[in-house]
Amino acid sequence: MNEGNVRIIPLGGLGEIGKNITAIEYQDEIIIIDCGVSFPDEDMYGVDLVIPDIKYLLSKKDKVKGMFLTHGHEDHIGAIPYILKQINMPVYGTRLTLGLVGNKIKEHNMMSMCNMIPVNAGDKISVGKIQVEFIRATHSIADACSLAIFTPIGTIIHTGDFKIDYTPIDGRLMDLNRISELGREGVLLLLADSTNVERHGHSISEKTIGETLTRIFSTGKGRVIVATFASNIHRMQQIADASIKHNRKIAFSGRSMENISQVAMELGYLHILEDYLISIDDIKKYPNENITIITTGSQGEPMAGLSRIAYGTHRKIEIDKDDLFIISASPIPGNDKIISRVINQLFRKGVEVIYEDLEEIHVSGHAYQEELKLIHSLVKPKYFMPVHGEYRHLKHHSDLAKKLGMNSNNVFTLETGQVLEISEEGAIANERIHTGVVFVDGLGVGDVGNIVLRDRRYLAKDGMVTIVIAIERDTYSIVAGPDIITRGFIYARESEELIKQIKMISKNEIELCLEDKIIEWQVLKNNVKKSIEQLLYDKTKRTPSVFPIIMEI
Amino acid sequence: MNEGNVRIIPLGGLGEIGKNITAIEYQDEIIIIDCGVSFPDEDMYGVDLVIPDIKYLLSKKDKVKGMFLTHGHEDHIGAIPYILKQINMPVYGTRLTLGLVGNKIKEHNMMSMCNMIPVNAGDKISVGKIQVEFIRATHSIADACSLAIFTPIGTIIHTGDFKIDYTPIDGRLMDLNRISELGREGVLLLLADSTNVERHGHSISEKTIGETLTRIFSTGKGRVIVATFASNIHRMQQIADASIKHNRKIAFSGRSMENISQVAMELGYLHILEDYLISIDDIKKYPNENITIITTGSQGEPMAGLSRIAYGTHRKIEIDKDDLFIISASPIPGNDKIISRVINQLFRKGVEVIYEDLEEIHVSGHAYQEELKLIHSLVKPKYFMPVHGEYRHLKHHSDLAKKLGMNSNNVFTLETGQVLEISEEGAIANERIHTGVVFVDGLGVGDVGNIVLRDRRYLAKDGMVTIVIAIERDTYSIVAGPDIITRGFIYARESEELIKQIKMISKNEIELCLEDKIIEWQVLKNNVKKSIEQLLYDKTKRTPSVFPIIMEI
Repeated sequence: MNEGNVRIIPLGGLGEIGKNITAIEYQDEIIIIDCGVSFPDEDMYGVDLVIPDIKYLLSKKDKVKGMFLTHGHEDHIGAIPYILKQINMPVYGTRLTLGLVGNKIKEHNMMSMCNMIPVNAGDKISVGKIQVEFIRATHSIADACSLAIFTPIGTIIHTGDFKIDYTPIDGRLMDLNRISELGREGVLLLLADSTNVERHGHSISEKTIGETLTRIFSTGKGRVIVATFASNIHRMQQIADASIKHNRKIAFSGRSMENISQVAMELGYLHILEDYLISIDDIKKYPNENITIITTGSQGEPMAGLSRIAYGTHRKIEIDKDDLFIISASPIPGNDKIISRVINQLFRKGVEVIYEDLEEIHVSGHAYQEELKLIHSLVKPKYFMPVHGEYRHLKHHSDLAKKLGMNSNNVFTLETGQVLEISEEGAIANERIHTGVVFVDGLGVGDVGNIVLRDRRYLAKDGMVTIVIAIERDTYSIVAGPDIITRGFIYARESEELIKQIKMISKNEIELCLEDKIIEWQVLKNNVKKSIEQLLYDKTKRTPSVFPIIMEI
Repeated sequence: MNEGNVRIIPLGGLGEIGKNITAIEYQDEIIIIDCGVSFPDEDMYGVDLVIPDIKYLLSKKDKVKGMFLTHGHEDHIGAIPYILKQINMPVYGTRLTLGLVGNKIKEHNMMSMCNMIPVNAGDKISVGKIQVEFIRATHSIADACSLAIFTPIGTIIHTGDFKIDYTPIDGRLMDLNRISELGREGVLLLLADSTNVERHGHSISEKTIGETLTRIFSTGKGRVIVATFASNIHRMQQIADASIKHNRKIAFSGRSMENISQVAMELGYLHILEDYLISIDDIKKYPNENITIITTGSQGEPMAGLSRIAYGTHRKIEIDKDDLFIISASPIPGNDKIISRVINQLFRKGVEVIYEDLEEIHVSGHAYQEELKLIHSLVKPKYFMPVHGEYRHLKHHSDLAKKLGMNSNNVFTLETGQVLEISEEGAIANERIHTGVVFVDGLGVGDVGNIVLRDRRYLAKDGMVTIVIAIERDTYSIVAGPDIITRGFIYARESEELIKQIKMISKNEIELCLEDKIIEWQVLKNNVKKSIEQLLYDKTKRTPSVFPIIMEI
């Protein structure tokens, strides 16, 4: 590494969805941009959360000087408690973002050790020779920012997650003037959100949702129950506004919905007339036609509010035939089926449900092609590196930059772990550092890995068959067993004959060994395992996990 | 059941996706319409296929006189071999449909016992007092039909799966004239496809895809590799036509693609000039720019062609940087993520990939709202019962019928297992019969059920911990163990201390019992199980399956 070079090190978020975290390194300083989680794939059985592997940062712990947050979504802040436990550093962000981080820090009982420093859009923070400026951006959460990172060899702009909404709910427009000014002064590198690069045209303003909601609300004969993302405070605001127009009190339901609305109101990002805000415990004090409930569960999560209401397991909300449900969200890829299940269940209960396939009640928070073109055209960076997307998105974002006139050699389609190193002479991306995923499962962080998950997958596929035999070393004889336990393999009543065969074959295998005075566990176990696996495959075409246990008396 | 009544008995496909099968019963006859499979949900670990439970039919086995097939998709024919093994009956269908059924029957070695009777659109088959007429329909598979079922108390029209394509690839239009004629004569009951009832407007003709494909093919510098549904013979035809226009030979890859294209060509549903058809083994004999490969794997299935090519595990096709891939299909709900993974992998290999988000290279085979309105308006049925859809689709289809003027009392939104019984006086739906799902797992049909699946889910979530102890009854003492085996729980190196504690606590629990001369297995096991579950939950917040095994010497 050359003294005067700047290194951009994506530790997550490139070539994958979620766990966004990027390190920027210059001489004795490393700053970190965002620190998010991702959610487990459907084959990561039992995993609760996925956080980035930060071995690289740990190896340079003393250089890590601060964390800068673009906004408060889980995929940008969710891993903060886990990372701060390993490397403490000041955390900079706007007030709402830090409010949401604060909730997490409290849950982890880390308040005393955390140094969170609120900033406003426009503020500049110096960390050694690096300076970071927060620039107002618009996104599906309030108080989002892009960042300008000033280094001795040039300016880096990181858009964060953004869309260009000319009519944002809070009236705070993306600071295109500042971005333009930086572009005129010259930008070394642009890192920009690639999520929606495959979508033509321009994203739709959040404001349009308000009009649709107001129209739909006017059809509600009883309660209106809206499920949406708890972090989408602008959406909450519009739901509240539509409610007030139709003289409905507003109650929040679901832990994250209650927590975030509380934080947002305290900090002045969500404004609901006091008269109109009620506790979920008080909804029965008013006629149903004067009630709106804003709930979690817009992704069909089985333990969240919407699903509990649908299946009649919510402690505080019983379904009523005049309820009007609105799911004001898009399915995150992979969630379509569980959302559809909840919708079906609601219809079975006889209520009305409005969702994205029927009405425009959700808009994306990420820039479409024309918005991306605007940013590229204003910034006119020397180098470009697409961020925040699967590989297909990064690839298409690079293509877009090239179509806008950038030299292919200056466009870097990198993935997590590939380092972009920029000097005054040029930029290269030859180095690859250690990165990866760390699984959080219950209290364990990192104690579940690929081998454990592989075993879980095997167990899930065809269950398990355990064979226990006790042998006496002195007499070379079986003194108890074989006993067989199966789980997840086959119904007991279907398997009597098979269990008999398992016992017989296991016994034979062991006896053959004992006759030859072979008593090494590995040999005994392997012989039993192989014969039983073969038997079960021949008889059932299945491959349960077979565990022979030989006890020695 | 009244003598003169007709009973419509949905045994699958209503309020669910897939395994479409409907029985129609009149006096001494039952006929069956379609007999499909559905595919396992993501939490049905290890299940290969889901087939309908036909206990109802078995209880009236002698009355079951014939099966009538609307078309050859898996969700309409996939369960035929399993059902025919239990109730043999003649199977009626158009030639392509029976060709596809034949493939299955061969795989199950059932050719000698099956009575398959080919029909043409327009044919009428009499089964006792019931008569069934096949009516040409258009769908995403060739040779699809609607059915008119003439009963002594009136005519039932079952649309089967359909769209109204005015420019079908084979020139065979849906026989709207016949449907109209039946409507004029009076239709007692309409059963109609509800899949796309939530989509406004009119579906797009299959023919538009041909134009798009031809344009995209012109940009291909090397091979063009198209993944699509193996059953979509019209799509195959258009891919072949576009290939021939650009002087490309055509090779099929993937078992189902090879089988179905073979059947379709033999029966005259797919026409490819002999000169242009080559074996996948011969693709290297021609320049890449003269090759098109049509492959399976459009849903991202890990074992199918497209995925194997992407990950470099295909035995016959190695990726080339000039390859142009086209995924001419929509993701079936739930498959988005695995398809996206394959797309990302292809882009990583540096090739171009065109898919639905980028170009219009797929159209649906199911009628949109305006097409459904047309059918309702032509048929003008006395009663209506939506079929083929999740509950949300059935509900919206019923709403559509009512908006078109039908009396609410004559519209029946039923689910699998609810019987519609129609007499000359009226119709009621009070009866519910036994229905359900039967899981196919390997060779087993029905030997895996909810309990086995529940165990698989537990095992998948946090793995298992097995504790083996040998005790001597005479001396009330532990003679070997505790031995601990864990799988899918925690990494061994992380768990040494925990294993020690498991051993200690298990030993204590057993010794406590033995001191009191308690030796009942259930007591010993339960005490160990409870203490260990508690220990593990306290230490890890996880709930692995705990299996204590007590051996008696």
